[in-house]
Amino acid sequence: MKALVYNSSPQSNRRTSPGSPHRPLVVMKFGGTSVANVERISEVARMALESQQAGNDVVLVVSAMSGETNRLLKLAHEVVAVPDTRELDAIAATGEQVSAALTALAISRHGGKGRSFLGHQVRIVTDDAFTKARIHSIEHEVLHEALAARIIPVVAGFQGVDSQNHITTLGRGGSDTTAVALAAALGADECEIYTDVDGVYTADPNICPSARQIPSLGFEEMLELAALGAKVLQSRSVEIAMKYKVPVHVRSTFSGKPGTWVIDKSRGLESHRVTGLAVDRRQTRVQLVAAENRSGLLGEVLGLLAELNMSVDMVTHSVLPHEPSRASVAFSMPTSEVHRAQTRLEQLGEEVKAQQVVLENNLAKVSLVGLGIRSDPQVSATACRVLNQEGIALVSVAAGELRVSCLVQDGQADKALNLLHDAFELGAENGDQPVEQRRVSNAGL
Amino acid sequence: MKALVYNSSPQSNRRTSPGSPHRPLVVMKFGGTSVANVERISEVARMALESQQAGNDVVLVVSAMSGETNRLLKLAHEVVAVPDTRELDAIAATGEQVSAALTALAISRHGGKGRSFLGHQVRIVTDDAFTKARIHSIEHEVLHEALAARIIPVVAGFQGVDSQNHITTLGRGGSDTTAVALAAALGADECEIYTDVDGVYTADPNICPSARQIPSLGFEEMLELAALGAKVLQSRSVEIAMKYKVPVHVRSTFSGKPGTWVIDKSRGLESHRVTGLAVDRRQTRVQLVAAENRSGLLGEVLGLLAELNMSVDMVTHSVLPHEPSRASVAFSMPTSEVHRAQTRLEQLGEEVKAQQVVLENNLAKVSLVGLGIRSDPQVSATACRVLNQEGIALVSVAAGELRVSCLVQDGQADKALNLLHDAFELGAENGDQPVEQRRVSNAGL
Repeated sequence: MKALVYNSSPQSNRRTSPGSPHRPLVVMKFGGTSVANVERISEVARMALESQQAGNDVVLVVSAMSGETNRLLKLAHEVVAVPDTRELDAIAATGEQVSAALTALAISRHGGKGRSFLGHQVRIVTDDAFTKARIHSIEHEVLHEALAARIIPVVAGFQGVDSQNHITTLGRGGSDTTAVALAAALGADECEIYTDVDGVYTADPNICPSARQIPSLGFEEMLELAALGAKVLQSRSVEIAMKYKVPVHVRSTFSGKPGTWVIDKSRGLESHRVTGLAVDRRQTRVQLVAAENRSGLLGEVLGLLAELNMSVDMVTHSVLPHEPSRASVAFSMPTSEVHRAQTRLEQLGEEVKAQQVVLENNLAKVSLVGLGIRSDPQVSATACRVLNQEGIALVSVAAGELRVSCLVQDGQADKALNLLHDAFELGAENGDQPVEQRRVSNAGL
Repeated sequence: MKALVYNSSPQSNRRTSPGSPHRPLVVMKFGGTSVANVERISEVARMALESQQAGNDVVLVVSAMSGETNRLLKLAHEVVAVPDTRELDAIAATGEQVSAALTALAISRHGGKGRSFLGHQVRIVTDDAFTKARIHSIEHEVLHEALAARIIPVVAGFQGVDSQNHITTLGRGGSDTTAVALAAALGADECEIYTDVDGVYTADPNICPSARQIPSLGFEEMLELAALGAKVLQSRSVEIAMKYKVPVHVRSTFSGKPGTWVIDKSRGLESHRVTGLAVDRRQTRVQLVAAENRSGLLGEVLGLLAELNMSVDMVTHSVLPHEPSRASVAFSMPTSEVHRAQTRLEQLGEEVKAQQVVLENNLAKVSLVGLGIRSDPQVSATACRVLNQEGIALVSVAAGELRVSCLVQDGQADKALNLLHDAFELGAENGDQPVEQRRVSNAGL
């Protein structure tokens, strides 16, 4: 295992005593598989101490031991089918509380000084949107005090408190957000996200055998990939990294290899055409057919969806060819949210006087992401042509600043992904050396 | 299941709006077996709502689901043999966090309003003696707010925070203390301790078949019984109940029968000779043999033991018959603490110039407790005679204000208990009706 690379950051807002030598500050985040049992927790402690001994100040952020969050949520759902979200968060937050304290113990076991910190102890203040809260502020004085005493703070990921001191959680993958937000608040030099894969890939290697690991990509590209289904980082964490320019290094806990750097590329140092592909399955397309084509129809629909906190995408608005007083609005959303929204979607249909509300399930969104898409209008044309040639029907296509998304039948998504990966030459682009690209197998560890 | 009895308390310091009708306030505490699984948690919620519907304001206190605290502590000990107690408390406290939130969910499930509160949310402020902290103060404003909104607060037992906001726990059985301290702070009319036995018995019915349930006893008697090995209530909880005159009703979660009232009997309304018996096993006797008999020797030894936070008992001090310049000091302590204290005990022996430090293991302390002991010097004489007659050797005897304790070989403790139970006619005292006295079997529920 190599000592951590130290990247000097000009934006550093760290508090250092006058005259004291600057020690690089690194936030290291470990996911559930990295703290799955006592042996792995011990390894995490060893890595943190190694980084400290190499001259870094180290702050750890840990997820719950893998499987623990699901076990806890299952208990809650055994009590009541639709649990109150405040209590759900109080229950779920215990997973990280335990793993943080165990990791602190493991650091002592290895001869260092570790101390666990919960959301309310740091304190990480969020809004009160239980189960998907957003961080408002981080009061990190206690962490600086710990660092000054050469203690490695182990912060429980995923959790915070709202202004009323209720425990909140940040949603699945929320520990990434805890780590990046802490790195931003502390003015850390980098945020290392340790996970069970080697980094970010051009496509999911389980689906696309020729997928390559991406050595580095821009915040905006990573944000698109995360939003479009790449599971490697929570979107919110990338937003924060982008806003505060926190260099993020996504890498494997187990392999010791360099991973993928997510960094500021806004100044156009590189210009790939397409950087990577993402697939988001279990999508439903909702069509409000032949609504009254009044002015502001689209704004009205989007406003109501935003009120419901629905994450919709691929919105289209089309006037009916032979009936200009009527228009259809369609959008995609995760199928898992449709059940919750169904009644409200039907009301929405009535409000805009739609003749029909049509739901189409079993779709998948296959997306191309890259800084180069911004300057190349041909990307979406090429994507459509490639898929059409191979007989893959496009339910809908949407192009954005940095991405092109294609809604296809779920059963055709894997084929579409591989076709696009080949068409945009992601397997061996720009003469890069092909890197070993298999996922690290958990079984082999 | 009967609705809760309401005992009006003249010491009530409850906040009531002017003109609002006084609703009795009851704190109901449920132990680990009462919240062992989803079904039992549901039953606890039902009982709380029944009490609320009968006209009470209800505050619940819950322990961790049975087995959970042990599971968590085992995890910590797998990481390191002697875990840091701060981290141990952060880990252990999650057990009550989960059960409190699950109970709050179960209350909603039954149509009521429940809300979980953790130690730092209430807030229950303790000293910083991790794993055995003592409560300093309780800020209970949030609980009053909840009660005013007809919410049943479910407080996580066993836990608090110190002045630095570190999580602390109150020691085994600490949820009893949480409940009684909350009842005192809120000016509750009573504190109901729901457990898996029917109440307090004259002796452990598993050892003494003729043991009877005690309908009521005084705070001081209960305190002695708890301190001397009766497991039914944590000593600290009884101290607080006594100090604040909180009526405590110890009863079964499962049988619905009246239990044992622990109340103020200081004004001598009743005068049993002996109320009950307790056994405390795994005792070690420590003898500092032939120390220098300087003035203040005993004070010096006790002072040093207090510094070590050692709970010693049955202290004897005897001048050597033929050598008045030398004296022996002996005391008993839990064998589990001897290991921790061994080095210190040997130093102590050197400091007082003892010729030998002798440890005698495998002892048990059998104690008689009762308000009547205060006025009857014959109790200890009778106890000694009865045991001697039956060939039970007394290693040591100590008499206190409300108790007489006999240190015997552990293998003879059961026999001693039964002999004393018979000798003091605890099986059918004062013409009481014999009550059904078998422990409630968990298996049958």
